[in-house]
Amino acid sequence: MIVNGKNLTTIWYDNSFDKVKIIDQTLLPFKFKILVLNTLSDAAYAIKNMQVRGAPLIGVTAAYGMYLASKEKSDFDHLFESGEILKNTRPTAVNLSWAVDKILKKIKDISSDKRSENILNLANQIRQKDIDACEKIGENGFKLLKKIYEEKKSTINILTHCNAGWLATVDWGTALSPIFKANKNNIPIHVWVDETRPRNQGFNLTAWELINENISNSLIVDNVGGHLMQNGMVDVCITGTDRTTLNGDVCNKIGTYLKALAAYDNKIPFYVAAPISSIDFNILDAFSEIIIEERNENEVSYIYGLNSEGNLEKIKIVPQNASCKNYAFDITPAKYITKIITEKKVINANKLSISELIK
Amino acid sequence: MIVNGKNLTTIWYDNSFDKVKIIDQTLLPFKFKILVLNTLSDAAYAIKNMQVRGAPLIGVTAAYGMYLASKEKSDFDHLFESGEILKNTRPTAVNLSWAVDKILKKIKDISSDKRSENILNLANQIRQKDIDACEKIGENGFKLLKKIYEEKKSTINILTHCNAGWLATVDWGTALSPIFKANKNNIPIHVWVDETRPRNQGFNLTAWELINENISNSLIVDNVGGHLMQNGMVDVCITGTDRTTLNGDVCNKIGTYLKALAAYDNKIPFYVAAPISSIDFNILDAFSEIIIEERNENEVSYIYGLNSEGNLEKIKIVPQNASCKNYAFDITPAKYITKIITEKKVINANKLSISELIK
Repeated sequence: MIVNGKNLTTIWYDNSFDKVKIIDQTLLPFKFKILVLNTLSDAAYAIKNMQVRGAPLIGVTAAYGMYLASKEKSDFDHLFESGEILKNTRPTAVNLSWAVDKILKKIKDISSDKRSENILNLANQIRQKDIDACEKIGENGFKLLKKIYEEKKSTINILTHCNAGWLATVDWGTALSPIFKANKNNIPIHVWVDETRPRNQGFNLTAWELINENISNSLIVDNVGGHLMQNGMVDVCITGTDRTTLNGDVCNKIGTYLKALAAYDNKIPFYVAAPISSIDFNILDAFSEIIIEERNENEVSYIYGLNSEGNLEKIKIVPQNASCKNYAFDITPAKYITKIITEKKVINANKLSISELIK
Repeated sequence: MIVNGKNLTTIWYDNSFDKVKIIDQTLLPFKFKILVLNTLSDAAYAIKNMQVRGAPLIGVTAAYGMYLASKEKSDFDHLFESGEILKNTRPTAVNLSWAVDKILKKIKDISSDKRSENILNLANQIRQKDIDACEKIGENGFKLLKKIYEEKKSTINILTHCNAGWLATVDWGTALSPIFKANKNNIPIHVWVDETRPRNQGFNLTAWELINENISNSLIVDNVGGHLMQNGMVDVCITGTDRTTLNGDVCNKIGTYLKALAAYDNKIPFYVAAPISSIDFNILDAFSEIIIEERNENEVSYIYGLNSEGNLEKIKIVPQNASCKNYAFDITPAKYITKIITEKKVINANKLSISELIK
């Protein structure tokens, strides 16, 4: 996607310098900086400190981390230990272990001097596969948006929550991929960007992506979406998902459920963009089987931004002696989800349709 | 109510010094400061610059403003002009013109030398009437909370949005009045305080009121309420209202509608505390007859708080070239409101019950 007029992805291998490069996402949208990952430690640091974030992107970064490790030493023990270091950076990220284990398995029986080249190829493949899946989600979702446009015949208003854009993947994103596709196909669109407190991924990342792609958008606080839907100012909602169950319940960023309720109350389609890798085919009942992460209360009581001198500053926005609770996700029951957009096809949010994906 | 262990109201006449005093609400919760209003200009400035806010409190402040004007000169022309100055500070506030006109009417035929004393008495009466109405709302709402407690037999969890506490009135508040009453009657309660972006009245004012009254509370971002309700962590919701229609639709701070939807989806009672003065008996259809105020986008893109040195600072929290939309209120349809709590009685949110209030 476009940043300051240039085409970029969140991570890439620069073969003229034999380096891995990433966008440092901790500084967005206030500063834009490209970082070079030279060593395994650099890759581990980038994942741990959220310079890269989003499950797919973390997996790809770990794969390149294995390549950087193999440039240091290519014996299996060293690579195995390097994999452990990477896995421990964010132990709950499934894509991370998946990428490391896949690489270890593939290079186990390859002679030491060919391992480095092989790992680089594998990392490039994993990266490309993510791009392809996200682009496919975009194409499938685009068809839904096109249909809405053909009926409405004027600018369609899309509401999204949090960031499920290209910054959470390598390129294209999930929920934003159909939006990027629609824009490239000259469908007139306007996006309502939910702030997404407490970490403000909507304002910090989604808005930044859309502004860079020159897509018309308006930033709103999380309270506004219901009012817009009541007044015919939203034609469709699209969000991402962190985990979708076999029966179609969607676990996503806190607040998703409230927007789904408002969409349902106002008969507005509510789509969820989900790479098949994010569907948990082993879970039926999200409410009893998914534990909702509770995060540090400082994420609620402090907020970052630019002060009057243009410097990044953290301020405290709660009274003395305040106590905050910070639940990170909520569950939207399947009955409120119109369709799930996967890279394979657009499906219903129910067990029958979802289980067909792996048949 | 209690501030730093002392009983206070938002405005009072200090008869030992013949002065009117207020709490400067622009600095809360970061600084606590009592201001003296010496002149008509001081009163007009306090209303215009939101050192006092909330419809009932603005009306009371205007009444005392008339008293301060009468101390300067007590001829009718001067008092009439002073009334115009006060009315122009926030022209849409109904309580403001109501208080000024009431005073002008009463003192028109009183001899000039007795006017000042008369206006002070009227201002004190208006203030006391507001306190009494709010306390009555508290008593009526308390009965509902008591019933919930008697069934549950353990701490009841109450969710509220925005600030409808004593800071918006003279004392007691509207939505928070039943909560203060419950606490004083030893009903164990815990309050979930919605941040209420973009102006953060929940964190800035509601939390500050509850902390000072030693009432157990947790601050949450506006996205969290739905998740709590799905998980049995909310027993009842109570909010205020800016304007209620004859058929029971409630126009209140943006985001109220989303919480009402979640309460309805999870079979949790949703109460609205409404002084009869806030009910508009002339409006039936809120959606066609109430225009939702759109406010300055800087309220969304900038936020105030304390920096690391403990000084109040404003920071920008949106990307360069961002465009924000700032809708201030939304409408919750009557069907999602369990009961309306007035100072007279607890009623249903429908035309039959509401019209009985003025019979």
